[in-house]
Amino acid sequence: MPATPNTTGLPTLLLNAPTLLIRPKAISTNLAALRAHVHAYAGSAAPRLWAVLKADAYGHGLVPTLSAVGLADGVAVGSLAELYDCRAAGWTKPILLLGLEQDVLPLADPSIGQVHFVLHDEAQIHTLAQLPPHLDLHIWLRHAGQLNFSGLKGQAYAQAYQQLQVLLKRKIIAGLGHLQHYAYAEDPVRLQNERAAILELQKALPGPLCTENSSALLASPQFAAHTQWVRSGVALYGINPLPGPSPIDLQAAMTLRAPLIAIQTLAPNEHLGYQASYTSPHRRRVGIVHCGYGFGYPRQIGSGCPCAVDGKASVILGRVSMDTLCVDLHHLPHARVGSQVSLWGEHGIHIEDVAACAGTIAAQLCTGLTARVQRHYLP
Amino acid sequence: MPATPNTTGLPTLLLNAPTLLIRPKAISTNLAALRAHVHAYAGSAAPRLWAVLKADAYGHGLVPTLSAVGLADGVAVGSLAELYDCRAAGWTKPILLLGLEQDVLPLADPSIGQVHFVLHDEAQIHTLAQLPPHLDLHIWLRHAGQLNFSGLKGQAYAQAYQQLQVLLKRKIIAGLGHLQHYAYAEDPVRLQNERAAILELQKALPGPLCTENSSALLASPQFAAHTQWVRSGVALYGINPLPGPSPIDLQAAMTLRAPLIAIQTLAPNEHLGYQASYTSPHRRRVGIVHCGYGFGYPRQIGSGCPCAVDGKASVILGRVSMDTLCVDLHHLPHARVGSQVSLWGEHGIHIEDVAACAGTIAAQLCTGLTARVQRHYLP
Repeated sequence: MPATPNTTGLPTLLLNAPTLLIRPKAISTNLAALRAHVHAYAGSAAPRLWAVLKADAYGHGLVPTLSAVGLADGVAVGSLAELYDCRAAGWTKPILLLGLEQDVLPLADPSIGQVHFVLHDEAQIHTLAQLPPHLDLHIWLRHAGQLNFSGLKGQAYAQAYQQLQVLLKRKIIAGLGHLQHYAYAEDPVRLQNERAAILELQKALPGPLCTENSSALLASPQFAAHTQWVRSGVALYGINPLPGPSPIDLQAAMTLRAPLIAIQTLAPNEHLGYQASYTSPHRRRVGIVHCGYGFGYPRQIGSGCPCAVDGKASVILGRVSMDTLCVDLHHLPHARVGSQVSLWGEHGIHIEDVAACAGTIAAQLCTGLTARVQRHYLP
Repeated sequence: MPATPNTTGLPTLLLNAPTLLIRPKAISTNLAALRAHVHAYAGSAAPRLWAVLKADAYGHGLVPTLSAVGLADGVAVGSLAELYDCRAAGWTKPILLLGLEQDVLPLADPSIGQVHFVLHDEAQIHTLAQLPPHLDLHIWLRHAGQLNFSGLKGQAYAQAYQQLQVLLKRKIIAGLGHLQHYAYAEDPVRLQNERAAILELQKALPGPLCTENSSALLASPQFAAHTQWVRSGVALYGINPLPGPSPIDLQAAMTLRAPLIAIQTLAPNEHLGYQASYTSPHRRRVGIVHCGYGFGYPRQIGSGCPCAVDGKASVILGRVSMDTLCVDLHHLPHARVGSQVSLWGEHGIHIEDVAACAGTIAAQLCTGLTARVQRHYLP
């Protein structure tokens, strides 16, 4: 049986296994669109923008996507290791180190360039106080806000702010601002309350603000004019985090594609999958796809989740297994072994919709792919 | 604030991030226990055993765990790449190549040693017929059975069997048997039907059988006496696939552990997490753990899922985020930043229970961890 002609321009070898096709150009296009959107509302007061590359650039690969965010004013990373990777790859602009690492001592190394550190714990201030002055080190004090994951609030926040002001005067740190993660970025009314609270805080404790994320920037970019730095993660990768449509056009930066490795024909009332997770009422042609939960395609997805076979709309049938999943071919007589199945990111299969079928959000899907998926970058 | 004393014998650096601790010794112990269990029921007729190492040894690492299955008669892998890795690492016994790769041409390379190939497609027989004779190549014809993922059935199966008998006589292949994956291995009655059907098939088409998996071997090992090869995956890693208790003691081969990076105190009725996914009725101390769905800990897990903090039982609170999750500390006054949180695999936190909280099975958890989790092997 001859294989389906390969019209993708990719080596055939890659298409025999689950493959992630990543388009850095989509990321730079999304970044430009988001900037234009914010500028249209915030005008000359438009803030600087952190491109969030934590979690290995949301699963897209940190180093291979770095050049795609060249127009950002800085990049935000989740670990010192990611920070070093960015510097080694030639990133010279500021880096925001999100507050997942506890230790501030490595920040004393002047070779790491301009670093912005998210501080969430009084103990970190005591260590900071022992660092030498004149580092290019900026501190963002994390306000716990409504999210309460980490950071300070109330009296403890004000006290930390005053201690950091002392370090600012001693030139141990070069800047001090307020950073908050919204708990309700997708809910306009509650978001407004969170914004009002941080403005109130800023009145009492002057300093720049870094509060906005993709959802907030897309839904209500006006507030960006009140801030000095904004952050964007998901939107850069073409993911719409809003419950409704995105106000700007976002291009998917990631496609998950896998080959058909077998075709079965079910008789009427015949079962498919472990514990007969699907039963066909009619005679039905079914495709077996070489992808499953062992690659990061969620097992929580059941029959009906959208996919595309050689570009034509279809659905998942039955339960996803470790190495395989099944797709409906009853309307696709031309599908054959070697046909390419798009699981998300092309042919109208939106990662947000697939995530909803798994009871989750798109960010889990793109960051949750395992090392067994082959990665390939498109020009 | 001094860190919690490190009594694990592991470098402290590793414990600042989500870490997977893998015990190859547990795998060899489980393998020995499973063999003894099968021998006790099947006696001198006990079949040979494939240790299933597909999906990077169910996320435990293929090469680092290979020496732990040295007592197996062969290993089963999911790809040619995994087969080559096993040979490069010094595995000289048979290798079963599960039928996820379509191409049989690489099997003509005599340097790959004794290979058992799971064949599921008539087209593969035509290619096989062109290979040179006297290869150490054994074919297992995959019966579609009740699972229907791939393989043949009925007339097509019998015809493929006859064609392969010709290749056997021509010495192009060195062996021919029947392989089936059960659809109902956890359901005693339906499993019995599946077994009866494959025995019936074998009567008409003589040849060795490879049908049993971990569930079947644990629940009803007697049938193994009728087979020539059995397979075990999950049980080797200490995972019990049965709905009830395992008849043999299984040791978890994998522990997922992560550090506390912050501690928050919630006021009564204060919220925690995105969209206020948890609200505390009382004043409550909460720990922020550096692990989340970006590492493979499922976002589908909600409040109440078990974990342990410095070895003491606790539960998850609120929604899992990309880099963090929250745990209850109301009863753990000694927990502090740097405390170690066991997410599964030790201190009574069973991966099967965590999987149930995510609406899935343990195999998804162990194969679904991303490359961002640090791996460490214990002696």
